[in-house]
Amino acid sequence: MQARHSPHAPRTSASPALVPALSRALTLLERLAQRREPMSLARLASELELPKSSVHGLCSTLLRYGYLARQDDGAFRIGPGVMPLAEAFVSGTGLTQEFNALWAERAPDETVILSVLNGRDVVYIGARNGQRPLGLAFNVGMRLPAHLAATGKAMLAFHAGAAVRELFAGAELTRMNGRGPRGIDELLVELGRTRERGYSVDDEAVRAGVYCFGAPVFDAAGEPVAGIGVCLNKTTLGADAGAEHRDTVLRVARTLTQRLGGRAPAATQD
Amino acid sequence: MQARHSPHAPRTSASPALVPALSRALTLLERLAQRREPMSLARLASELELPKSSVHGLCSTLLRYGYLARQDDGAFRIGPGVMPLAEAFVSGTGLTQEFNALWAERAPDETVILSVLNGRDVVYIGARNGQRPLGLAFNVGMRLPAHLAATGKAMLAFHAGAAVRELFAGAELTRMNGRGPRGIDELLVELGRTRERGYSVDDEAVRAGVYCFGAPVFDAAGEPVAGIGVCLNKTTLGADAGAEHRDTVLRVARTLTQRLGGRAPAATQD
Repeated sequence: MQARHSPHAPRTSASPALVPALSRALTLLERLAQRREPMSLARLASELELPKSSVHGLCSTLLRYGYLARQDDGAFRIGPGVMPLAEAFVSGTGLTQEFNALWAERAPDETVILSVLNGRDVVYIGARNGQRPLGLAFNVGMRLPAHLAATGKAMLAFHAGAAVRELFAGAELTRMNGRGPRGIDELLVELGRTRERGYSVDDEAVRAGVYCFGAPVFDAAGEPVAGIGVCLNKTTLGADAGAEHRDTVLRVARTLTQRLGGRAPAATQD
Repeated sequence: MQARHSPHAPRTSASPALVPALSRALTLLERLAQRREPMSLARLASELELPKSSVHGLCSTLLRYGYLARQDDGAFRIGPGVMPLAEAFVSGTGLTQEFNALWAERAPDETVILSVLNGRDVVYIGARNGQRPLGLAFNVGMRLPAHLAATGKAMLAFHAGAAVRELFAGAELTRMNGRGPRGIDELLVELGRTRERGYSVDDEAVRAGVYCFGAPVFDAAGEPVAGIGVCLNKTTLGADAGAEHRDTVLRVARTLTQRLGGRAPAATQD
């Protein structure tokens, strides 16, 4: 089957005119969020290749709204004002409430995660870290390349091949652990296999020793709106190659699809 | 005692020049986050009292960066691009990791929450909802008025009175359940009492039937950087007026202060 819609992607054609000051401010926020450390005005200006006076105006405005906070040494970091936006996004999806309700009675044995697509990345909007240590904690808001993460592949598998090609056009398929598809054709082959069997596998492509099954959650239109993943230590897979975990991820994805009033796309119900 | 520093507040004096397009975009995001429903371009333009063409440019830019998402009917909602900012903020505080570690072995019986100040609000950055229903679920990113929430009062109590006056200057002290301080003087009296005993109380000011103890978490400079709250159904307080829960909140706040390498301000150690 071929799905009918395209992922929400950076548009490459017919982009409307962007507001330059706003673009610069959003780039500044992203840079600061990625760097994982506070940055001075001078460093921000240098990294963004902008005059200090311009960065000063952006920072003052972002500070005023709480999107930035300033340390005693004058360095900027992301501020608490971003949190209500995150809450609005998460509650707007309706997904996390249902996801959290699944674990109200019993914490999962293995780490279970919920993600959505954001361009070429997945962003985690729910996580219940399991009892057994993974060496990798999933935090809400964390971002991973969609072509490596099991949840990302589970969603991409139900997008049209042409849309996936457009999404990754001109982009390098990053690798994190020396594994994962080497190019778009290899990715499309893997997505085809994922679509056929209904679940995806990340075999240590994100982190050495970590194995993850993924499955898509569908909305009422049959579109993949989220991905469920079960992540475990690869050494615990056992003789059945983790059949129990594969079944868990499929069951959780199905339950969540039902709770959302969703349905799998027609062609996969054959 | 009087604390020495002021909350991070909307500045009323010597505000640096703001970037107008950025201010408009941040106002748009906040409005959309507050409304809890998708909004059309026309409605956004009308609510923000801006020309449609201007709002169109802002929305296109925010869409491009994933801060907005667009529905099939054309309406805008907050997009997944805000999630990495939230994760950067939360992990940058160092607080939530320690908070979550406290409950790794055993879920708390009652709802335990962690918040930080953002202007006149508290924003929740950690929450472990308890086993017993409260009729009020705390979600990370949720915002409440600091003068009503127990965690907010616990932090404000360790700010200088003059700074608290400045923070609330010209602002109405909203009420949510017909309770809470009627003005700044009444608030300062309550903050004084909170400072003396080391914990705050929210007696149904946020929600009917919900009672909450709060205590401050301090950093290495002795500044209140977060608030811990234990929230329970008021009918379960018992004959000792919830002494056990009050002790829990104080113990958790102390543990978190220690894990952060923090200390209570000198005058409170007497």
